[in-house]
Amino acid sequence: MNLYDTISAISTPSGEGGIAVIRISGDRAFAIIENIFYKDIKKEKKINISEIPSHTIHFGYLFENENLIDEILISIFKNPNSYTGEDIIEVSSHGGILVSQKILSLILKNGARYAEPGEFTKRAFLNKKIDLSQAEAVADLIKSKTDMAHNSSIMQLEGSLSDYVQKVRQDILNVTSLVELELDFAEEDVEFVRKNDLKIKIEEIIKNLKQIIDSYISGKVIRDGVNLVVAGKPNSGKSSLFNLLLKSNRAIVSEISGTTRDYLEENLIIRGILFNLIDTAGLRTTSDIIESEGIKRSHEKIQDADLTLYLIDSSDDAEKIRETIRYFELNFNSNKTIKIFSKSDIANKQISKLCSDDDIKISIFEEESIERLKDKMVTRISDTGIKYFSKNIILTNLRHKICLESVVSSMEESLKSIDCGLSGEFISVDLRNALKFLGEITGEVTNEDILNNIFLKFCIGK
Amino acid sequence: MNLYDTISAISTPSGEGGIAVIRISGDRAFAIIENIFYKDIKKEKKINISEIPSHTIHFGYLFENENLIDEILISIFKNPNSYTGEDIIEVSSHGGILVSQKILSLILKNGARYAEPGEFTKRAFLNKKIDLSQAEAVADLIKSKTDMAHNSSIMQLEGSLSDYVQKVRQDILNVTSLVELELDFAEEDVEFVRKNDLKIKIEEIIKNLKQIIDSYISGKVIRDGVNLVVAGKPNSGKSSLFNLLLKSNRAIVSEISGTTRDYLEENLIIRGILFNLIDTAGLRTTSDIIESEGIKRSHEKIQDADLTLYLIDSSDDAEKIRETIRYFELNFNSNKTIKIFSKSDIANKQISKLCSDDDIKISIFEEESIERLKDKMVTRISDTGIKYFSKNIILTNLRHKICLESVVSSMEESLKSIDCGLSGEFISVDLRNALKFLGEITGEVTNEDILNNIFLKFCIGK
Repeated sequence: MNLYDTISAISTPSGEGGIAVIRISGDRAFAIIENIFYKDIKKEKKINISEIPSHTIHFGYLFENENLIDEILISIFKNPNSYTGEDIIEVSSHGGILVSQKILSLILKNGARYAEPGEFTKRAFLNKKIDLSQAEAVADLIKSKTDMAHNSSIMQLEGSLSDYVQKVRQDILNVTSLVELELDFAEEDVEFVRKNDLKIKIEEIIKNLKQIIDSYISGKVIRDGVNLVVAGKPNSGKSSLFNLLLKSNRAIVSEISGTTRDYLEENLIIRGILFNLIDTAGLRTTSDIIESEGIKRSHEKIQDADLTLYLIDSSDDAEKIRETIRYFELNFNSNKTIKIFSKSDIANKQISKLCSDDDIKISIFEEESIERLKDKMVTRISDTGIKYFSKNIILTNLRHKICLESVVSSMEESLKSIDCGLSGEFISVDLRNALKFLGEITGEVTNEDILNNIFLKFCIGK
Repeated sequence: MNLYDTISAISTPSGEGGIAVIRISGDRAFAIIENIFYKDIKKEKKINISEIPSHTIHFGYLFENENLIDEILISIFKNPNSYTGEDIIEVSSHGGILVSQKILSLILKNGARYAEPGEFTKRAFLNKKIDLSQAEAVADLIKSKTDMAHNSSIMQLEGSLSDYVQKVRQDILNVTSLVELELDFAEEDVEFVRKNDLKIKIEEIIKNLKQIIDSYISGKVIRDGVNLVVAGKPNSGKSSLFNLLLKSNRAIVSEISGTTRDYLEENLIIRGILFNLIDTAGLRTTSDIIESEGIKRSHEKIQDADLTLYLIDSSDDAEKIRETIRYFELNFNSNKTIKIFSKSDIANKQISKLCSDDDIKISIFEEESIERLKDKMVTRISDTGIKYFSKNIILTNLRHKICLESVVSSMEESLKSIDCGLSGEFISVDLRNALKFLGEITGEVTNEDILNNIFLKFCIGK
């Protein structure tokens, strides 16, 4: 069953914690543990895993020669009933950095190889415990930062996308059989009605696929978040705004103290939507005339951004404000930007003439103004067609989108072939191509490049 | 058995990893899991933990109402055969930050309380699974950064200090019984020989205790490392030296790539000894005459340091070098300092007259010079009486040292009582005091303050 060598890695995050887990998978996993694990501190009682049932836990001591490394628990998983489908031992040790490294070193010295990122999950895929879209869902689940991302990845892990792919596969196979059945009667002419019937079926499949492909605009935001730029002249209140957003946001997210510190460094979650703040250090001089490389790069960032908050200091004099607005209108895409008049508490008296209903006035002294801004940010994102709450499948992964687009192309080729009156062989080739691209999503059709590309993005130990 | 409520926390370090472990301990642990765990995704099969043996692992699904939170494994530990001595469930989930937080939230909503730092280990102590010195060893083990620190904490966890305390306790008890036996014959005069006999026994115990107390000078370095300051005038090569030390050090420690990045940020491990680099930003102007608060604070740091590396730029002209040396001699304790002549490749021609045999010449172009410096650093530390390789007990914890010092004081009091011809009651009180202080080490005698002080230094989830 096991065509592979035995691998090991620390599966818990690096750092000081209560528990570390070191995982070993492969057909030498049990032999390695039998070599270094004792049930007693006097090294008198060894363990014989073949006599022990799977899914049991055992307390004991790990020794490197005469040196005690740690008191540990081992969890035994016998193939095929394990994450990878191979024999697995999970060593649960004290959670120190040095302790867990010492245990890993000891295991490696006893014949395991240091696992590559994602290699445990790769083996789960190769041993057919999960398909490729489910393996990708594991990585997405670990990285998820919002409820929506969590929900879409856990659904994908449970096979929502796999099920959809199987359904489409069956639809295409049905059409393909019709075409290939025709081939057996190739001497006879294909009837026109038959042709039309075929086209209707294919067009239906294409229409359905395109709907799913369109969901990627939402899926990308769900998985990766909205790229957000805060722009504006120096001293227009960019930092204050950002701190306010961060602060009110932190209060919501960090219900459990001490666990979320690293979590939001560059991320904001507003109304459940993830916003990734893009560094705008380079934007400090956006309103200067000097055409420098820095400004160019900043504008590239703004162009890539899904949303830009453009700040205008409303305490400036009217002429300056008008100039800033003109600069804004020349340089920014208003669909993707919210104009914000900051410092509204000390605003210029003419400000009401200068700003429109669609703009937002904020003041750090008025908490409600920040809430209005948040509502506007969410509305603006929704205006671009992004849906957050859908019971249907939402495509979150660019690879899947590209695969489905290739399926659609092949299906459209088949339509052309029919229209050109080409023989069934040609139509069949197009449809078989579509099936191949579909199979790439779940990994029924794959190659080493695709796999490497997917699994190298995993963390070590998964 | 369980006088306490049910607690829960994430026991693995915070961050993205393959696996997160969420621990629940207390008499509601099983009921909570039975409420939210299903063996199938259709929520049809619940689990009945009372029918399941301890130390077994079960795959299933965690639900919050209708929402699937994660696919997980649960490990079941039935009291008293668990870390805390209580019923324990360990939930092993996908290793994301959000996922593990969601699971913890779900458990808390179902009736567990968020555990305080070290609360699992505190319960292990209160339920007599381990004594207090062993509980402290757990925290030291997790934080250990060198083989020596690891070794001393694992030995303490296995009861080396507890055994020593029991031995001393027996010795003191033997003496106490002699004294208290005497009390029964209080009418008769205590013989002079008897008194002397007693004194010899007590002095022997004191002598032995003092040896162990003296080991703390080594133990502190083993556990906490050597506080190291790199000092010298601006541009004397401090950063280059530090980078060189870091670099050659990194090459040794990070045998396993990717796992040690955070590990050495402010720590150097040289020949197995931990050195903590103390920020010397304030020392940039040490040779200036201006008496500023900054310099004062820097000198305080140097005074607190266990070792200072004092850099002298040997490419300076002779007069400047002499001046720097004079400044050094006035301000530094030469026992705790190594004079380093940097940039020896472009040294002043008179340099050999200016530096002594005890000084070190280094150049970033001569790798060997760094190795010589490392040897000197280790020798200098050893000169202060620190021993790293000892088969005897080494006291690593200040609390234990203070307890043992109090034991010695009480024993010395008993000697004085004997010398003053006080009656047995008084001697007995002194000896009973000594036993009380001894009991504080292992926690046989303790109070809430001592416990809080110890366990609040633990990480969450241990």
